Amino acid sequence: MLPIAVDAMGGDHAPAAIVAGAKQAAAELGVPILLVGRPDEIGDPGDLEVLPASEVIAMDADAGSSVRRMKDSSLVRAAEAVRDGRASAMVSAGNTGATMASALLRMGRIKGVSRPAIATPIPVLGGTPTVMLDAGANAECSAEWLVQFAQMGAVYARDRFGIEHPRVALLSIGEEPTKGNPLVKETHKLLADPSWIGSTGAVFVGNVEGRDLMTDAADVVVTDGFTGNVALKTLEGSLRALIDGVLGAFDTDDATREAAKVLMPALGPLYVQLDPENVGGAMLLGVDGVCIISHGSSSATAMVNAIRVARDLVVGEVVEHLRAATAPVVPAG
Amino acid sequence: MLPIAVDAMGGDHAPAAIVAGAKQAAAELGVPILLVGRPDEIGDPGDLEVLPASEVIAMDADAGSSVRRMKDSSLVRAAEAVRDGRASAMVSAGNTGATMASALLRMGRIKGVSRPAIATPIPVLGGTPTVMLDAGANAECSAEWLVQFAQMGAVYARDRFGIEHPRVALLSIGEEPTKGNPLVKETHKLLADPSWIGSTGAVFVGNVEGRDLMTDAADVVVTDGFTGNVALKTLEGSLRALIDGVLGAFDTDDATREAAKVLMPALGPLYVQLDPENVGGAMLLGVDGVCIISHGSSSATAMVNAIRVARDLVVGEVVEHLRAATAPVVPAG
Repeated sequence: MLPIAVDAMGGDHAPAAIVAGAKQAAAELGVPILLVGRPDEIGDPGDLEVLPASEVIAMDADAGSSVRRMKDSSLVRAAEAVRDGRASAMVSAGNTGATMASALLRMGRIKGVSRPAIATPIPVLGGTPTVMLDAGANAECSAEWLVQFAQMGAVYARDRFGIEHPRVALLSIGEEPTKGNPLVKETHKLLADPSWIGSTGAVFVGNVEGRDLMTDAADVVVTDGFTGNVALKTLEGSLRALIDGVLGAFDTDDATREAAKVLMPALGPLYVQLDPENVGGAMLLGVDGVCIISHGSSSATAMVNAIRVARDLVVGEVVEHLRAATAPVVPAG
Repeated sequence: MLPIAVDAMGGDHAPAAIVAGAKQAAAELGVPILLVGRPDEIGDPGDLEVLPASEVIAMDADAGSSVRRMKDSSLVRAAEAVRDGRASAMVSAGNTGATMASALLRMGRIKGVSRPAIATPIPVLGGTPTVMLDAGANAECSAEWLVQFAQMGAVYARDRFGIEHPRVALLSIGEEPTKGNPLVKETHKLLADPSWIGSTGAVFVGNVEGRDLMTDAADVVVTDGFTGNVALKTLEGSLRALIDGVLGAFDTDDATREAAKVLMPALGPLYVQLDPENVGGAMLLGVDGVCIISHGSSSATAMVNAIRVARDLVVGEVVEHLRAATAPVVPAG
């Protein structure tokens, strides 16, 4: 396969953790890697190929203007490598907005897709993650875009998690079709008509609420990028607060510290499922190529997982499936 | 003081748990109570006064039509008791939508208030809760309404939690004023102009994200009722999933069960802070009277806490303060 372009400069721990993760992925997964960034900062690339890029878009830089201005940035060059057929996918733990903008401007959209959306796997303890989209690419959406998100999310749930008939739900504030804001009510009507399903194999299961995200209620949850981002951050923040509280209680005194040691092995699987390091990143669905967005705090392990997801989706031909799912229906005859 | 009207028929455990909680509140807090509902189902009211109401609005009934149709329901009668000066406040663990509709139709709005909003305290471990509003009363909002929510939320944070200068924030998907959907961007502009602050003593601290809700980042977080409800339910759902996971790990084998016993006292304070039973309920801000909405699953303890909050807010004259905070500014001269 073509190499996976890895933005060596993106992320809180770049380039060291990113390069280490890329080397590990190449060794463990046998995936060819194209490291994109400043050669002098990347250091010894080992066996990996390097695509030099002199500029770095900062984690907090304005996305649109940075991408337009910094044509020799690692993000823009990574996206160009995919566009030019030099790489099969791009992976970045850098500025999320700039990653989206680079992918959108350089790879372009899949024909017929109105807006790309970020699909984020939400952990379901003891189960398959719920794919939520849009997690923040589009702060304002139309009902028609949400229907495309449903199509793309269903393809993604199938290709990434092997769910043959993904249950697609709409995020609202009550189960009844009459509940929600005008966007949700209009989208509900469109999703209730099965003509959008096409090749996706999806089933529309109606509205779900925020409390259903971490449950088995649905495989794909569709929402606008504002609501989705608020829900994702709320979920992360509440888990963080509770984990901090529990760890603080474990550290109360010698007796609790001893008891905590006994519990740690039992808590391990929980930790593994919730650790963003293991999620493998979100995917920007709808651009004409595989673009994986990893957490800004990504370690080498997180990069290995993100590269594995990119590899699986390239091999599984997710972009071809997205193209088929979102293609305008041509009337027969 | 005038009695507090308690909807004896509302809630998953009504009337038994509600009546028990009302009796306990009367005994412990010395608050006069007016139990509203079916006398034969209430049973022995002890020393409490009973206001007979023959109808019960079911937990899952359509709010608007039920309130219009069931004029002798416990919810409608409780709201009328406040309107008619027979009670100082109403408390219900029943159908949230019907509670709102009863309060709105019978008590009316405070003059000048465009829309009432549900203010829910979000727990902050080791700190003062964050007041989030609107938690679901208005699925669609205007920027002007959100500014009134900021005024009312600030009054509530002061009267309920004693915060003299409440830090008011706007829920968005990035700290920058340019981040968010059109509603949030417009609201940000209005809140950045201090003319709304008036008598509230509030300070606008800009945008916060979902991850800040359970932190000390702000005292009041303003949002539309759709986003607020999604955030609240997401927060509840993720805490529930993690608590279930931790309790499951504690129950792995004899060794973990023994260790868990050692940890339980240390985890107690965490549990107390997160248990909705102890929150004391949400308040419907903007109606012309005190209306406390308790969790549907309220136990007797939850009712005692909700009645205590109602009592404190009546004594603290929250409605007068809301009236002052939302009064249209009359130009001097």
